[in-house]
Amino acid sequence: MSGIKLSIIGAGSAVFSLRLIGDFCKTRGLSGSFISLMDIDEERLNAVHKLATRYAAALRIDLDFEKTTNLKNSIKDADFVINSALIGGHKQLEIVRKIGERYGYPRGIDSQEFNMVSDYYTLSNYNQLKYFQEIANAMEELCPKAWLLQAANPILEGVTLLSRYSKIKVVGICHGHNSIEDLARHLGLNLPQIDWQVAGFNHNIWLNRFKYQGKDAYPILDRWMVEKREKWIPKTPFDDQLSPAALDMYKFYKRMPIGDTVRNSSWKYHYNLETKKKWYGEPWGGADSDLGWNWYQNHYLKEQTENTFRLSTNDSIDLLKVFPPDQMSGEQHIYLIDALVNNHQKRLILNLPNQGPIIPGIPENVVVEVPVIVDSSGLRPEEIDPPLPKRILEMYLLPRMLRMEWSLEAFITGDRGILEEILVRDPRTKSFEQVKAVIEEILALPFNQEMKRHYRYSL
Amino acid sequence: MSGIKLSIIGAGSAVFSLRLIGDFCKTRGLSGSFISLMDIDEERLNAVHKLATRYAAALRIDLDFEKTTNLKNSIKDADFVINSALIGGHKQLEIVRKIGERYGYPRGIDSQEFNMVSDYYTLSNYNQLKYFQEIANAMEELCPKAWLLQAANPILEGVTLLSRYSKIKVVGICHGHNSIEDLARHLGLNLPQIDWQVAGFNHNIWLNRFKYQGKDAYPILDRWMVEKREKWIPKTPFDDQLSPAALDMYKFYKRMPIGDTVRNSSWKYHYNLETKKKWYGEPWGGADSDLGWNWYQNHYLKEQTENTFRLSTNDSIDLLKVFPPDQMSGEQHIYLIDALVNNHQKRLILNLPNQGPIIPGIPENVVVEVPVIVDSSGLRPEEIDPPLPKRILEMYLLPRMLRMEWSLEAFITGDRGILEEILVRDPRTKSFEQVKAVIEEILALPFNQEMKRHYRYSL
Repeated sequence: MSGIKLSIIGAGSAVFSLRLIGDFCKTRGLSGSFISLMDIDEERLNAVHKLATRYAAALRIDLDFEKTTNLKNSIKDADFVINSALIGGHKQLEIVRKIGERYGYPRGIDSQEFNMVSDYYTLSNYNQLKYFQEIANAMEELCPKAWLLQAANPILEGVTLLSRYSKIKVVGICHGHNSIEDLARHLGLNLPQIDWQVAGFNHNIWLNRFKYQGKDAYPILDRWMVEKREKWIPKTPFDDQLSPAALDMYKFYKRMPIGDTVRNSSWKYHYNLETKKKWYGEPWGGADSDLGWNWYQNHYLKEQTENTFRLSTNDSIDLLKVFPPDQMSGEQHIYLIDALVNNHQKRLILNLPNQGPIIPGIPENVVVEVPVIVDSSGLRPEEIDPPLPKRILEMYLLPRMLRMEWSLEAFITGDRGILEEILVRDPRTKSFEQVKAVIEEILALPFNQEMKRHYRYSL
Repeated sequence: MSGIKLSIIGAGSAVFSLRLIGDFCKTRGLSGSFISLMDIDEERLNAVHKLATRYAAALRIDLDFEKTTNLKNSIKDADFVINSALIGGHKQLEIVRKIGERYGYPRGIDSQEFNMVSDYYTLSNYNQLKYFQEIANAMEELCPKAWLLQAANPILEGVTLLSRYSKIKVVGICHGHNSIEDLARHLGLNLPQIDWQVAGFNHNIWLNRFKYQGKDAYPILDRWMVEKREKWIPKTPFDDQLSPAALDMYKFYKRMPIGDTVRNSSWKYHYNLETKKKWYGEPWGGADSDLGWNWYQNHYLKEQTENTFRLSTNDSIDLLKVFPPDQMSGEQHIYLIDALVNNHQKRLILNLPNQGPIIPGIPENVVVEVPVIVDSSGLRPEEIDPPLPKRILEMYLLPRMLRMEWSLEAFITGDRGILEEILVRDPRTKSFEQVKAVIEEILALPFNQEMKRHYRYSL
């Protein structure tokens, strides 16, 4: 039993925080720990803090919680820091998206080839990346030996940035690979009997190994496609693992895209709502359409948040019934902490620099998402076997990687010309005037004053 | 004095062949040689053969010429093979271009980001790449020790293809770097006092080193831009080394693009004729506009070809006055042969695999265009010093390289899905139906029957 200090930055993201706190409460090896919840939204923070305290009490686990609006107070002497903060929230993302749409960029300028995920901004997210750096800088000072578990988007850009320019230990954590469960369920396979491996970048992972009971399982998928694909309909906008888009990508790339990768295609499936519906299913056309994203924001997220507030203000509700003690959330953060602290070895899908290289053909200073064995001796990436096909490397991962490099080069240098040049290469751009105007207007937003000062023309 | 056998494939390309033959005739160390001129167009071949024979006689140099329409006869026991053949000629390129334009691809589907040169086809050029392979295969059988000097486009794709899949020695040769002379003239610099180096890919080279009388010469260019850029006007559509496009690229990439590199930008300078005029000058808007390319084909090339026929049918013309014996053409092919055969050391700009690597950050099996010291001991690439800036590598060369890999993957696998996916990533594409239709119509052309059989959908 080892008590540690965990700081959760952006803890007011109620749904996500409660998943993490729930997992933490259920991990007996972490009893005696101290969890600092940090957010600038006090109302949300209070709600999460209250629920966390009540849930730990209900489970009779020895955990202490604090709440704070101050980053430095929260991370001081922490052993682990989880960053899930979205600077400006979804509200600011939508304001920026709307400006893009007015200038001829449906779904906003940050929706790009191989990165259509609607809250994974890589161009206009100066404040977000800047906050990543602020956390890392503060950690170097106040908890230099701690791990930063980066949960907030964009993980590829953010973790690559921090792994290059910061001294702290950082790893990126997503849950997109869990869609392997959807694949197993649709194909009628028993998950523990699947020998699977995924590799790529965050939101860009491919099922390089897929065996069932010792044999290649791709023929099972091929059979499903012949017999059952016609009957597929999505239950939510995010239910896309067996969508026509996923299967079309599989047909072309010869491996199955997993999780958010299905959303991150070229424009082929995204030209317009009609096209999105064809490839991601009716009625929403996937998560990254106006309809799908509206469902997520105004239905799913809103309901979950209201639910949190309701639970936090009604002490008579039995939290053990709402959050059953025998179910883990599917998030990996607490597993990672437990593996490192208590030597409870675990296989996790993590984002870390491609040292080795883990994936040949990708530079070693680029962060990849791969299976990693974690225990108290540290992180050991698995050998990627079989390797990713050449086509996935050259037609998908490397183009995606270059977009990451471009956006980091823009962020690091503050050269506005790079932002412009990235949009010049956007198929929605019809003239350079369009590019200059949309960037100008985004930089003129009140919450982008620092970004505007940062992005100048180089001499 | 060493007599060799040289085979020139596509010798009916009169302008180019006569430049090579002229250089050969003036290279005394190569007297006693035998030159086989090969083309399938007998009329052009006869004209070139007649002029070549007469010119050698006028120079009193001991050279033998033959003409043949048979590839294998021509290359048998050759020491050097120069391939300048354009399969189907400009006529077929224009037919394919027009189909592209009908489907919404101005300047045709082969005009692509970082490759706007109007006869550098990389997608619809199955017959061209196939002929490269046919020559290489025949050389393996009939002259396995010979060098293939690849002069015909596309050099990046073609030489990379042959260097990976053929056993023959191959090197790509272009003359684009000669534009350094234009730069020197405009800036009032004495060429021999410039210490310069270029590096990149064919048609994608950058002036990484530019010193004058021992000092950095870029400030001289900066001064020229302040004082004289306003007075610049192009003399021909190809006169673009100091065009606004070149200077804008310099401003962004921090190094000067050299030669055809100026034409090979992103779409920023190519959206339409008006944009092209702004960036490449009035009245043509550069070589790769409808006006500029018309000037090249129907004015320049036509005049030169007519001139060749006129000269070949009029024995009373003194060829020594038309082709002065003391002037070399500026092409590098004969210098290369003379250096290898007679140990006349020469610095040439050549296309060869990036072994070393010569340019860090680019795979070693990709063909780069760099300065090479050539003598009888072989080819020794110079160290690239200073290195190319990161921005040129990541925002220009690597994206261009990926397009090369995509087109070779299409050519090698015959997977029509790759051709489609390349066009999906073209900003002119508005729907997948557009992509399928334009490829279908190009494959239906009578001269593309073999290509159509080659490009199938993979299972």
